[in-house]
Amino acid sequence: MLKKVLVANRGEIAVRIIRACKELDIETVAVYSEADHDALHVRLADEAYCIGPVSAASSYLNFTNIMSVATLTEVDGIHPGYGFLAENADFAEICAACNITFIGPSPWAISQMGTKDVARTVMKKAGVPVVPGSKGIIETPDDGVKIAEEIGYPVIIKATAGGGGKGIRVAHNESELRKGISVTQKEAQANFGNPGVYLEKYIEDFRHVEIQVLADSHGNVIHLGERDCTIQRRLQKLVEETPSPALDQNIREEMGQAAVRAAQAVEYTGAGTIEFIYDHREKKFYFMEMNTRIQVEHPVTEMVTGIDIIKEQLLVASGEKLSYTQDEVTFNGWAIECRINAENPDKNFIPSPGKITMYLPPGGLGVRVDSAAFPGYTITPYYDSMIAKVITYGKDRKEAMAKMKRALEEFVIDGVDTTIPFHLRLFNHEVFVGGDFNTKFLETYSLKEEDN
Amino acid sequence: MLKKVLVANRGEIAVRIIRACKELDIETVAVYSEADHDALHVRLADEAYCIGPVSAASSYLNFTNIMSVATLTEVDGIHPGYGFLAENADFAEICAACNITFIGPSPWAISQMGTKDVARTVMKKAGVPVVPGSKGIIETPDDGVKIAEEIGYPVIIKATAGGGGKGIRVAHNESELRKGISVTQKEAQANFGNPGVYLEKYIEDFRHVEIQVLADSHGNVIHLGERDCTIQRRLQKLVEETPSPALDQNIREEMGQAAVRAAQAVEYTGAGTIEFIYDHREKKFYFMEMNTRIQVEHPVTEMVTGIDIIKEQLLVASGEKLSYTQDEVTFNGWAIECRINAENPDKNFIPSPGKITMYLPPGGLGVRVDSAAFPGYTITPYYDSMIAKVITYGKDRKEAMAKMKRALEEFVIDGVDTTIPFHLRLFNHEVFVGGDFNTKFLETYSLKEEDN
Repeated sequence: MLKKVLVANRGEIAVRIIRACKELDIETVAVYSEADHDALHVRLADEAYCIGPVSAASSYLNFTNIMSVATLTEVDGIHPGYGFLAENADFAEICAACNITFIGPSPWAISQMGTKDVARTVMKKAGVPVVPGSKGIIETPDDGVKIAEEIGYPVIIKATAGGGGKGIRVAHNESELRKGISVTQKEAQANFGNPGVYLEKYIEDFRHVEIQVLADSHGNVIHLGERDCTIQRRLQKLVEETPSPALDQNIREEMGQAAVRAAQAVEYTGAGTIEFIYDHREKKFYFMEMNTRIQVEHPVTEMVTGIDIIKEQLLVASGEKLSYTQDEVTFNGWAIECRINAENPDKNFIPSPGKITMYLPPGGLGVRVDSAAFPGYTITPYYDSMIAKVITYGKDRKEAMAKMKRALEEFVIDGVDTTIPFHLRLFNHEVFVGGDFNTKFLETYSLKEEDN
Repeated sequence: MLKKVLVANRGEIAVRIIRACKELDIETVAVYSEADHDALHVRLADEAYCIGPVSAASSYLNFTNIMSVATLTEVDGIHPGYGFLAENADFAEICAACNITFIGPSPWAISQMGTKDVARTVMKKAGVPVVPGSKGIIETPDDGVKIAEEIGYPVIIKATAGGGGKGIRVAHNESELRKGISVTQKEAQANFGNPGVYLEKYIEDFRHVEIQVLADSHGNVIHLGERDCTIQRRLQKLVEETPSPALDQNIREEMGQAAVRAAQAVEYTGAGTIEFIYDHREKKFYFMEMNTRIQVEHPVTEMVTGIDIIKEQLLVASGEKLSYTQDEVTFNGWAIECRINAENPDKNFIPSPGKITMYLPPGGLGVRVDSAAFPGYTITPYYDSMIAKVITYGKDRKEAMAKMKRALEEFVIDGVDTTIPFHLRLFNHEVFVGGDFNTKFLETYSLKEEDN
């Protein structure tokens, strides 16, 4: 078993990992930037070392300083959390070279899944559904029209070298498609130096549903069911729940099995998540991407399965087998998570750094709070604005939602603006309560103060 | 369903009840003494009214003022919590007379169980084991010796009119018994004006194990398994857990069935607890008493069954059926509760009132905190010294204990002394960790600072 772990992260996920290590009698080393000397993860770890100035590039992403601390403190494992170095195959390679266990999958698995085209090809081969589209680059508008007629309109034209929402255009009919292909090719040439474009069916009305998987180095792969993360703002998840109100048992099982095949295809180890586009009208799902790390929303899965995912990561990284077989995974009740950010939801979610003057998290039955905040803590503007995750658990969706409302109403965070009022409006919104919505929910219903 | 409930209590249990009401969309009315105007239960309730000065007799036990608030605010139910008015049959009668639902059993059930001799007789009739002893008053020392030889030494001589540890004497052999009977008779005559004494077998080496029951007004009675509350200091419970490390499955089922019979014998409704003396060497259990109210330690049962006991109380009081049949009650994992008191464990647990200058409860997976404390809250010397309950949940005892240790280490309460250091010593004590101990644990191992 690992004896001493460096947590290469900050905030609530660093605290989460330190807690799991303590419960397993693993010593912990925290690292922190100059902005974080007072942070909770620094206080809770057995040892803590400053690794650089406030800029993440100089501290939390600073390979050299982190590896120096790791070597000096003689840790045998590094947990990257999420973000920062979590999906950096180079960092995973360096850990291996230094004979320190990177708590995550192999560098090869990270890079297979981190490259969009490669992942799509690997998934198709593994029998995981991908969005229908062209096999590769389309040469002429005529080729495009032929494919579009096969897969049906609307289609999305994507520059193969694009990304981050750039080099993308939707076409609803042949004339839009012909024009779109040539315009996107020209733009792609101008912007990325590569005119290649390909086609995918454009699914407008979908839900974001993902499957948590766990895999060990003995060939065991299991899934822990789905999470529904359909409530998003500009591709940022805000609320996650499990089970999904949109899935029936057949789809759930198919999706779980597809996720296991996806993990097997890259010889995955540790905790990972396969994200799917779920076409809830047609009851079809398509591979979106795999996150080869722990995710922010992992707690909802823990609540309904009773499985501590971080502990399983630590066990697997220690060479142990998973604690559970697929048959031993059971699902009870309903869990929801709200991400509480220090942002003003009525001013376009502008970040609200500052000192928390009063802080009292909610408590009681079925309420879990994962946070690194405390009374007197100063939220800096340098990192992401999430200050707490509130997770509620009930016997069904109604009870989990009722608990969330009372937990959010109880939560006292004074001194900074937070997204708590936004979440309360959401949990009082009849469409959200009804459970039938898609990823455009927040484009459709702004949930601004004046609308309620 | 009840629409508006007055919570006739304070502290964490008032907060607990208000939370359950909010989740069921029941309006809440808090009452408070002049010492509690700033208390959390006052802040969380929909309405709050001062009912008198600091002395509990003038406020939280003040029938007239409480019923005045109840009438003026037009509540349809009163939840008494624990302590104060919870087991007061007269108060339950007054509620009924005012046409307000007392959230608890009938006045008759309260008084049956509140009178020690009556309860013993009712239990025997219901087939619930009671400690072997004389059928009633013993007339002469010879009668006593005859019974003692039947049930075996040591025996305990109890004055029938005694109570609270007075008028009690243990005898290990015939000569002690003969002397003891006459001395106790004389003392009883002098102290209580009634010389009657009776005999019971004296069980020295036992565990305190109790069964949670739930009953509705439609004749359904179920039990939710046991709680082991063996760690006590001067009859005050300090730590509770479920399941009991001392019970095997046969005893567990017998005890559960006995508890159901006990509740049926008094036509019980709502939540109640049958406390047993468990002779863990002989694997025999005996009725001790029934608490006809919610108990401090109810959360551990909620954690392993997933059943919200306060909500069931509210449902039953509304005339609904229980949400679960016995077959639907399942038990998963292990839960432990520590009562955190504002006391100095190294100064004979002297209360430590004062202002909490810094307060940060522990969080994360498997940690529940029920508390009415907050940063800046002033603990007054007027009521009991419990300021928080920490409940941890794990897949087994080892994990629940590991979680408790890390939760206690994380818990920040500055400004007053607390029993957290005491609990940490307990959770590091090999006998406690081993699970084989009796109610004399704290007489045997003082857990003073210098001993560790």
